Amino acid sequence: MPDSVRVGIIGFGIVGCGTYRALTQNAESIASRAGAPVIVTRVADIDWSRDRALDVPEEVRTTDAMALVADPEVDIVVETIGGITPALKFVMAAIENGKSVVTSNKELIAKHGHEILALAEQKGVDVQFEGSVGGVIPVIRTLKESLEADRLYEVIGIVNGTTNYILTRMTQEGLSFGDALAAAQALGYAEADPTNDVEGIDAKYKISILAAAAFGLNVSLDEIHTEGITKITAADISNAERMGYVIKLLAIARRSADNRIEARVHPALLAKTHPLANVNGSFNAIFVRGEGCDDIMLYGRGAGANPTGIAVAGDVLDCARNILRGASGRVLCTCVADADVLPMDEVETKRYLRMRVKDRPGVLGRVATVFGNEGVSLTSVHQEGTDGDVAEIIWVTHGNQEKLFNFAVNAISRLDDVEEIASNLRVED
Amino acid sequence: MPDSVRVGIIGFGIVGCGTYRALTQNAESIASRAGAPVIVTRVADIDWSRDRALDVPEEVRTTDAMALVADPEVDIVVETIGGITPALKFVMAAIENGKSVVTSNKELIAKHGHEILALAEQKGVDVQFEGSVGGVIPVIRTLKESLEADRLYEVIGIVNGTTNYILTRMTQEGLSFGDALAAAQALGYAEADPTNDVEGIDAKYKISILAAAAFGLNVSLDEIHTEGITKITAADISNAERMGYVIKLLAIARRSADNRIEARVHPALLAKTHPLANVNGSFNAIFVRGEGCDDIMLYGRGAGANPTGIAVAGDVLDCARNILRGASGRVLCTCVADADVLPMDEVETKRYLRMRVKDRPGVLGRVATVFGNEGVSLTSVHQEGTDGDVAEIIWVTHGNQEKLFNFAVNAISRLDDVEEIASNLRVED
Repeated sequence: MPDSVRVGIIGFGIVGCGTYRALTQNAESIASRAGAPVIVTRVADIDWSRDRALDVPEEVRTTDAMALVADPEVDIVVETIGGITPALKFVMAAIENGKSVVTSNKELIAKHGHEILALAEQKGVDVQFEGSVGGVIPVIRTLKESLEADRLYEVIGIVNGTTNYILTRMTQEGLSFGDALAAAQALGYAEADPTNDVEGIDAKYKISILAAAAFGLNVSLDEIHTEGITKITAADISNAERMGYVIKLLAIARRSADNRIEARVHPALLAKTHPLANVNGSFNAIFVRGEGCDDIMLYGRGAGANPTGIAVAGDVLDCARNILRGASGRVLCTCVADADVLPMDEVETKRYLRMRVKDRPGVLGRVATVFGNEGVSLTSVHQEGTDGDVAEIIWVTHGNQEKLFNFAVNAISRLDDVEEIASNLRVED
Repeated sequence: MPDSVRVGIIGFGIVGCGTYRALTQNAESIASRAGAPVIVTRVADIDWSRDRALDVPEEVRTTDAMALVADPEVDIVVETIGGITPALKFVMAAIENGKSVVTSNKELIAKHGHEILALAEQKGVDVQFEGSVGGVIPVIRTLKESLEADRLYEVIGIVNGTTNYILTRMTQEGLSFGDALAAAQALGYAEADPTNDVEGIDAKYKISILAAAAFGLNVSLDEIHTEGITKITAADISNAERMGYVIKLLAIARRSADNRIEARVHPALLAKTHPLANVNGSFNAIFVRGEGCDDIMLYGRGAGANPTGIAVAGDVLDCARNILRGASGRVLCTCVADADVLPMDEVETKRYLRMRVKDRPGVLGRVATVFGNEGVSLTSVHQEGTDGDVAEIIWVTHGNQEKLFNFAVNAISRLDDVEEIASNLRVED
């Protein structure tokens, strides 16, 4: 058995610093838990001028990540730089060199996880990525290990802290999307260019990773229907509230009895009785349902230096144990087939539709008739106080195939009665 | 590498059947995940006449558990019979024979975990017990592995489904304790003799296991202050509701900066804003707080054949992987020291105190003066509508050492003004 395990960290930003702090601050208890010291021997970053309030010894610092992944003094490479280029190159080179890899890079795993894990299996090393989804929440290990004797059929996540923070501020304070986004940016919860978060792209990466871990199937990013939260209005949030719902950006993956997969990211009205409905602010949570396990929810900090650093360090310790015991690669990559993803048109969803109509006799009946003609069944209808000649009607439907519903909405929007389809959102109970 | 891993199950009741079902129904996906078939080769039970709606082959059935733990055709022994005798004997014999052990037996792990794990370490085998706390909730693995790079300082669990079901019925329907208990018994959620659940004994076993996993310290069962829920009244629940609290049976373990441990089980008023406050019915949840991870909550089914069976089967797969890779014992027992447990007298708690007093001038002041004299600081006081000559006063205190508070309550109960101390509960914010 080796007398220590040596770690090299690439990228010394938020997650890299959190990982370094976790591995060094608690080094003594980590050594006793792993069975040998786990030592950070190299940290690579291109900019060492920035003050990080961390005391990294001179001989540990480097600017040369390619040298780090080839360094015989490194057993485990931690990649925390994010993005594809050059992260993919470093990760593949590390594996080629027989090193285990830990990464918190969701884009990298979502886009290249398959080839990375295939190379790792061939080389007999570990690749771990707990920090890539839900920060410190131990969801990957739970799906891949704790629940692996089950047949899981649903994973729903609130996996993007930025959008959850924005929606929480909108809900609790009645802010507009724009004002809530500005507040999130001022606090550093949203980036200057918030596209990746508010358009659901970050959540798309994460649900593809969760679906793969839960179902053992590769879900192509192109097949994940993705909508962001930019069109959500304070009016929709207060309507939802009145009807017993909150609006959340949900990342949903479901497996049907015949093994077809639904995978989608969009805002939805979520029943207040759902365990995810109380997940507020920048917290994340993942709800899992399976044949044997029934309902499980895991809740915690989805981002931040220390929480994500703890997740990455936990992965490092798992790799370290395998290195110490000669058991690297003990948890196999079980994602061996491509998912048969249901086109969004064929997915069945419940809908909330808010429309502005001319306030004249028979409107409600004419719209309802179109729904009926197109085979869309309705749960409830609510007509709001009129504004001059215009009335607002809110429809909630039962579950219907999206193509039926969309066809009905197209037909309805062409009615002379209808001024505007103001909102069109999905509902999850 | 062995070409399969063979499992023997002792005890074919609720959990044994759930484990058998999980391992056999999903055998194909389990084999691909583990890297080799995981086969149940023996099931021992003293009563095979009972119908369990499971088709166990004749050659797998046995009534001789001691033969099973010695059987060369068994690599992993699953113990699901519960209690100490004869479970301890079977588990120790299995380990002596070089077999890994999986158990869902909280009493066994709480009372004998230390000697069991010590023998396992000596013999180089695994002992796993995820199913012993929180059913399918992956809390043991999370504490021992995912969060092991952190310094954890608080674990609070709703870990007994029976009492949570009773308190939920009392809260939602205004039932008395007795009526809610009878309802739980009628549904099979409570046993004919409910002592173990309603007096907090089951929760005590579980918090001792959680504390050991979180802090790496043995907490003696004798040192865990334990109170049940039999004295909770509908009046307390509605008072709590009005003040923004729910009443839950909490199992609490905390570690202070100087490494002293609080460990206790008791009902408490829990702020509705706490993530645990929405855990209702027979669900369990465990809330964890650490320096790096901040707040985490894990939620799910704490009991039941299938959920607990999934947890046990997950442990079996972990042991199987280690057997296949020659890495048994890879996660060390890190519980190497005895906890320095704070006596309950020295623990600081907030309190809710409901008393009936003679309705005459100056009572409130005289009681408040005693609190002040004893150094107990108060948060709020509320005087309820009088009932003839008697008034009800509800006091809520700040955090005070229990001995100060108890001294004050003793002094107050001797006042001529005071008819009865009706309720005396702790408060967690």
